[in-house]
Amino acid sequence: MIGLLTPAESDRLRVLMVSTRNPLNIGAAARAMSNFGFRYLRVVNPYAPGFQEARSAVGASSVLARAEKFRTVAEAVADCTLIVGTTAVRTRHLHHTVRRSEDAARLIGRQLHTSNVALLFGSEKFGLTNDDLSHCHWLLRIPTHENNISMNLGQAVAVCLYELIRNARVAREADKPSYASAAEIDRITRMLFDALQLSGFLDLRRVADSEQRIRRLVRRLHLPARDAVIWLGIFRQIVWKLRSGETNRD
Amino acid sequence: MIGLLTPAESDRLRVLMVSTRNPLNIGAAARAMSNFGFRYLRVVNPYAPGFQEARSAVGASSVLARAEKFRTVAEAVADCTLIVGTTAVRTRHLHHTVRRSEDAARLIGRQLHTSNVALLFGSEKFGLTNDDLSHCHWLLRIPTHENNISMNLGQAVAVCLYELIRNARVAREADKPSYASAAEIDRITRMLFDALQLSGFLDLRRVADSEQRIRRLVRRLHLPARDAVIWLGIFRQIVWKLRSGETNRD
Repeated sequence: MIGLLTPAESDRLRVLMVSTRNPLNIGAAARAMSNFGFRYLRVVNPYAPGFQEARSAVGASSVLARAEKFRTVAEAVADCTLIVGTTAVRTRHLHHTVRRSEDAARLIGRQLHTSNVALLFGSEKFGLTNDDLSHCHWLLRIPTHENNISMNLGQAVAVCLYELIRNARVAREADKPSYASAAEIDRITRMLFDALQLSGFLDLRRVADSEQRIRRLVRRLHLPARDAVIWLGIFRQIVWKLRSGETNRD
Repeated sequence: MIGLLTPAESDRLRVLMVSTRNPLNIGAAARAMSNFGFRYLRVVNPYAPGFQEARSAVGASSVLARAEKFRTVAEAVADCTLIVGTTAVRTRHLHHTVRRSEDAARLIGRQLHTSNVALLFGSEKFGLTNDDLSHCHWLLRIPTHENNISMNLGQAVAVCLYELIRNARVAREADKPSYASAAEIDRITRMLFDALQLSGFLDLRRVADSEQRIRRLVRRLHLPARDAVIWLGIFRQIVWKLRSGETNRD
């Protein structure tokens, strides 16, 4: 389980590639399905030779090898209780409710708790036909920019499936760096202060509160815990070198 | 503005394709950028002939035509204040914090309010090198399934950019269907009741509360407003036909 869906729920989704022309796009859909943990690909009325090639290709994924081929949308959605078409268009569909992907995924996810859902992708050039659409309860659109609403088919499949598995309540799983302790910061600050005095930097800028300024400067670095020792070593070495120079000059 | 980012914010993102081998993937990245309203593509050390071909191709998008070419990552990120690498791996990166895309997009979006952000994608085969990674503040990973963590490059770009523009607080923009009024439902119910009596259906099942049952049956249909007239017409026609049959038999 990588996101919000359990494996059983993921297995209730049927991805339908309807009248896909380019077999590479069926392969791309299969790859995205595999990336996001979906297994059931259905191919409706594909450009025939291409699909057979794609399926029998060396290294074809298990999703592609398991793909079922159907002659009609009606047969391919027969075991589903919710049929969702995809569209790039915002306004054309007088006969269907169009939902943005963010909202659509929520409704699809809810349905997958208990029953099968079909998600239909039309052909590269024409999308879903009116006949395909007549099988759909409603349509999903990805919120693309008005200057270029039409996505590459494989990318559209990937985005839809990602939206289904993404988890808004994801634990901020980042292994947050732990920061250097105040004691370490203080040791570094004093060593840097020595280095700045010895190098003449502080002498050049006669400021009353220079020690506090340096302390604030170091604190603002948000030093990770594991780097504290290195920085202390760097300044210690610089201080040592500056002191040995002084000795030599004496 | 299609999602959470303003045009000015979108224009602060630099998408870096680093050492990309297949020029089709640079084209796919450019297309996804155009779909989601991003304009600044930077190509670092591409497999040279392919990139020139892709850029000069007939119909190359404005994103691709505007793409800048750099020799090193350092030069390509020079005007950015946050550098984010992408990775498929969950555990390898001892030197970097890895954030899931859902969380990463939130932080990138915040930074885009005020300054430029670079998002780096490595080569198809090897991803980002350790040298590339040393320029990054942290890494983003798309939550893929452990059986197949590695996404197609063009699909990964599309998913990352989608995550940046998606809007969790999207208005449920669906144009919700308006439903038939109680008066319409009532007319339909009475017409259906007549049809069921005339056809003998109600006679066959002698149930005391048959009229209430029929009323509940019709209400459960959640008839859309625009379909009320059609259904009323259908039952009216059936009733008329059944009655004319009766007359004929008399």
